[in-house]
Amino acid sequence: MRLARFRHGNRIATGSVEDDYVRPLAGTFFHNPVPTGEDVPLSEVRLLAPVLPSKIVAVGKNYADHAAEMGGDVPEEPVIFIKPSTAVIGPADPIPYPAMSSRVDHEAELAVVLGRVARHIRAEDAGRYILGFTCGNDVTARDLQAKDGQWTRAKGFDGFCPVGPWIETELDPTDLWLECRVNREVRQSARTAQLTFGPNRLVEFISQVMTLLPGDVILTGTPAGVGPLEVGDKVEVEVEGIGVLQNEVAPGG
Amino acid sequence: MRLARFRHGNRIATGSVEDDYVRPLAGTFFHNPVPTGEDVPLSEVRLLAPVLPSKIVAVGKNYADHAAEMGGDVPEEPVIFIKPSTAVIGPADPIPYPAMSSRVDHEAELAVVLGRVARHIRAEDAGRYILGFTCGNDVTARDLQAKDGQWTRAKGFDGFCPVGPWIETELDPTDLWLECRVNREVRQSARTAQLTFGPNRLVEFISQVMTLLPGDVILTGTPAGVGPLEVGDKVEVEVEGIGVLQNEVAPGG
Repeated sequence: MRLARFRHGNRIATGSVEDDYVRPLAGTFFHNPVPTGEDVPLSEVRLLAPVLPSKIVAVGKNYADHAAEMGGDVPEEPVIFIKPSTAVIGPADPIPYPAMSSRVDHEAELAVVLGRVARHIRAEDAGRYILGFTCGNDVTARDLQAKDGQWTRAKGFDGFCPVGPWIETELDPTDLWLECRVNREVRQSARTAQLTFGPNRLVEFISQVMTLLPGDVILTGTPAGVGPLEVGDKVEVEVEGIGVLQNEVAPGG
Repeated sequence: MRLARFRHGNRIATGSVEDDYVRPLAGTFFHNPVPTGEDVPLSEVRLLAPVLPSKIVAVGKNYADHAAEMGGDVPEEPVIFIKPSTAVIGPADPIPYPAMSSRVDHEAELAVVLGRVARHIRAEDAGRYILGFTCGNDVTARDLQAKDGQWTRAKGFDGFCPVGPWIETELDPTDLWLECRVNREVRQSARTAQLTFGPNRLVEFISQVMTLLPGDVILTGTPAGVGPLEVGDKVEVEVEGIGVLQNEVAPGG
């Protein structure tokens, strides 16, 4: 099922996307949502970020080719960092280019959405805690990342975490094709089979440290090919079996 | 005013602490709370974390003497990182010692609590966005901090962000005495006048990057004297004009 949040007229609601329609749901994604019986044409709604996470836990250097282009190896354990909830935007929302930076990069990623409270979960049980998968873009001010050492500022700007277009709940994430295009030109292309630490292992690792809440997002890391964005660029993240997340870069504050 | 959250019997409420009483408030801290007219003896309540932040933005190396003991200088701009909301605990809650670490340190800090949505705020206007100040402990798994490079895991464990005992709303934060004691032995002692970047400048800097929400906490950094904690230790953070935050270290998961 494809779970979405959307605006239709003055209403904000959740729904399942089927072909060219959204079928609104009563209740939340996390506890037996029930179709209301309506059908709304997809062309009449504006899709929103499909989830409002309390936190986004992201993983650095999880593809060997990206670790190499950043001048390092894949670490022996996942290296995690947090993007704040205020960074989340939805499909078609603009990515604001901050005045503080002069080098903002795209990072296409498979995003995991938690469905249940997760703490000390074993990898083999992780699937039961995952609601589904969506596309994510770990937008990064590369100049500030290098300057600070810590990645929080570089990756924490408002609008630096596009997610969407929806959450696909029935998907095997182990070998999906992933692509990033800027103005239709392919910049990143990989398969999730190249992930050093896959979704289940990441749920295990992160939940040994901190409680993951329903709706929390894990950004699994980006493959090689990261590169700069300019104002006006249209950046697309596509993950096989999910869909395309597109955002345009806009002047920011 | 000292704003607290507390449990009294089966009720969780907010209130103002005056002498040995808590006076419950109707409404939230953020919008003209009104006393209900009750008086509850402080001895009958259990104080909780005075605020439930969406995020904790913490600052590294903001006292020159601590930067030096970590082998570095104070950076020219604040270096920020995020502790997740799930790390927050209140006064008297145990700090769980994680199985993953064998070196967990205390870091006593002045904590700033936001009262309004803040974005692109100038330092000279920051006071209007600050609700008040409390004591914070930026508990850190020092071994994992060194191993990861990124500080998120080391500082993000459940229970690694004790705050309290209450929020003092009428306080000039520019030159307060700050102390950390472990089993009554003084480990850290400093004045907030030694902060390289004070509360107003931090609100300015962080709000240039990300939106701060009401209740969000800024941990302003720790002075020299950080050191290890052991299971059973009682760690106290005291800030002049606020009070004492005490937590005991307990075996964790």
